[in-house]
Amino acid sequence: MYRIALDMMGGDLAPYATLEGAHAALTRHDDLYLLMVGDEAILKPMLAKYGIKGPLLERCELVHAPEVVTMDDKATAILKEKKSSSIRVAAQLVREGRADGIVSMGHTGAAMVASKMVVGTLPGVDRPCLAAVLPNIKGDRTVLLDVGANLDSKSEHIAQFALMGAVYAEEVLGIKSPRVGVLSVGEEDGKGTETTRGAASLLKELELNFVGNAEGRDIWNGNFDVIACDGFVGNSLLKSSEALAEGLVHSIKESIMAGFVSRLGGALIKPAMKRVMKKLDYSEAGGAPLLGVKGVSIIGHGRSDGKTVGNAIRAALVACEHQINDRIHDSLERLLPQAAVTES
Amino acid sequence: MYRIALDMMGGDLAPYATLEGAHAALTRHDDLYLLMVGDEAILKPMLAKYGIKGPLLERCELVHAPEVVTMDDKATAILKEKKSSSIRVAAQLVREGRADGIVSMGHTGAAMVASKMVVGTLPGVDRPCLAAVLPNIKGDRTVLLDVGANLDSKSEHIAQFALMGAVYAEEVLGIKSPRVGVLSVGEEDGKGTETTRGAASLLKELELNFVGNAEGRDIWNGNFDVIACDGFVGNSLLKSSEALAEGLVHSIKESIMAGFVSRLGGALIKPAMKRVMKKLDYSEAGGAPLLGVKGVSIIGHGRSDGKTVGNAIRAALVACEHQINDRIHDSLERLLPQAAVTES
Repeated sequence: MYRIALDMMGGDLAPYATLEGAHAALTRHDDLYLLMVGDEAILKPMLAKYGIKGPLLERCELVHAPEVVTMDDKATAILKEKKSSSIRVAAQLVREGRADGIVSMGHTGAAMVASKMVVGTLPGVDRPCLAAVLPNIKGDRTVLLDVGANLDSKSEHIAQFALMGAVYAEEVLGIKSPRVGVLSVGEEDGKGTETTRGAASLLKELELNFVGNAEGRDIWNGNFDVIACDGFVGNSLLKSSEALAEGLVHSIKESIMAGFVSRLGGALIKPAMKRVMKKLDYSEAGGAPLLGVKGVSIIGHGRSDGKTVGNAIRAALVACEHQINDRIHDSLERLLPQAAVTES
Repeated sequence: MYRIALDMMGGDLAPYATLEGAHAALTRHDDLYLLMVGDEAILKPMLAKYGIKGPLLERCELVHAPEVVTMDDKATAILKEKKSSSIRVAAQLVREGRADGIVSMGHTGAAMVASKMVVGTLPGVDRPCLAAVLPNIKGDRTVLLDVGANLDSKSEHIAQFALMGAVYAEEVLGIKSPRVGVLSVGEEDGKGTETTRGAASLLKELELNFVGNAEGRDIWNGNFDVIACDGFVGNSLLKSSEALAEGLVHSIKESIMAGFVSRLGGALIKPAMKRVMKKLDYSEAGGAPLLGVKGVSIIGHGRSDGKTVGNAIRAALVACEHQINDRIHDSLERLLPQAAVTES
């Protein structure tokens, strides 16, 4: 049984989407014990309406948290003004060993601060990082990280992202000896900035399948399993890609709907389009794992619906099952100079 | 009549693609005088075969350059070892006033060094930058810059990219009072790095339609006309987007071809798909203008075919017609502190 703390008040559609997601996850996963963190007065009367009753109710409990972090709050508000916010209380549960992981669709910055400062980072990890698992053209998946937890990363941070991504790819995605790259502006060794060249040098020394520099196109062509970059770049790439894919599909639909014959054709290709869209659908992943913290943390999109929340809870369970943090810790201990992997 | 120097030996398909492109451009544009720079012994016998004869021949000439920059050469090779390379000689023609602009599909770094060091930068411009003109979902275009000329840009560089992009959008694309943004990881004012915040502060002070922070998604949604960023980020975004769009279209086609009914539908939507693909086709733009140099410089994709080379020459002509560099110089003089716009 894994104990997941769900930030019930986080996300644009909370608590409706979180209640729906909680119900879906409890129904689907017998090994889930759900700690629903939020305003008890609001949530309690809604549980039954969302099907959380009977035997399902036995595998969950409400944990009261009267405050909510809003988009106007600073990420650090959870450390001072909003200590009783749902995300902070959820993180506290992990810190106290009452939960194995947290899931939040709320304020991304606040969820990261809660994970880093309240849950805490693993020994040896300088900076936890957010990993996006993206579908590639070969039908496999590519892990891009960091996608927003860290701006202005140094060489050693990017090298650590790569390392954590490799562990994730191997343990959770089941990719044997994942091909790891550092994002740069050319595949040749010398290309890039001082920071990316430094990261590449560090990774070359490790017992890792480090391929070398990756370029933007390598995120999609399946030539790499893990691509590490600074969070500013990764975040821009992720947001751009999401909008480009949506925009492209929208343009195709619009163009198809513009004529009678193509409209007929459009009807015939609907199932084929649906298959492609399902592969691209970010809601399938549920959320991005924050790697390098002392517990599982899945951070989702603010606009997540119930299905996405359910999938995010599934992602948390999978990370728990694979003991992803223990594996990251083992890898750091094995691969990095001993001095680096001590409690800091 | 505009005089364009074409690097005949640059690009994966040179000189076949450049000969084809030269022919197409000479046929299409009466106001083009083409200086074809490359190995005379190779090129001269091929001209007639590619249709460059009769009246067309009167609007072009061969300029001999015995050396070629290869992908194994360093970008700076044109300054020392390869002074007689086609790209270097082409740049020299602009420097000497014998040509108004250069077009090259060869080694991007070498083309940039040639443009910056041989042609020279405009007074007041710290760093020329490469601009990509991208189609957005509203059917308009968004200028993303820098897409690879500069790594590790400082605030003042990004602000200058924004300024040059705004002039390009207004003068060449005809967008009145273009909406300008600085790429960041959140739309709120304080979001981003010290560098992006600094660029935003500088731009706020100028008489410019500066909207604020843009995010990755804003490259495609049509909410901005110009988005400025460091060249590492821009280059990664451009390469990723190209591969994602290609991959997505490939996946859709593959999925359609997998079944009989959808294959029939696929045949019916072919013209609709073609319309979308045409909008996305990078070969339509021909190449990216390098802004901020003392003459027009269009830098294209290494894998450009004849059609793309022709379009790149057209892009050079358009930039000449709009006197893009004079306009950039005027804007810098008008908007930036006087001290900055002196010959450096």
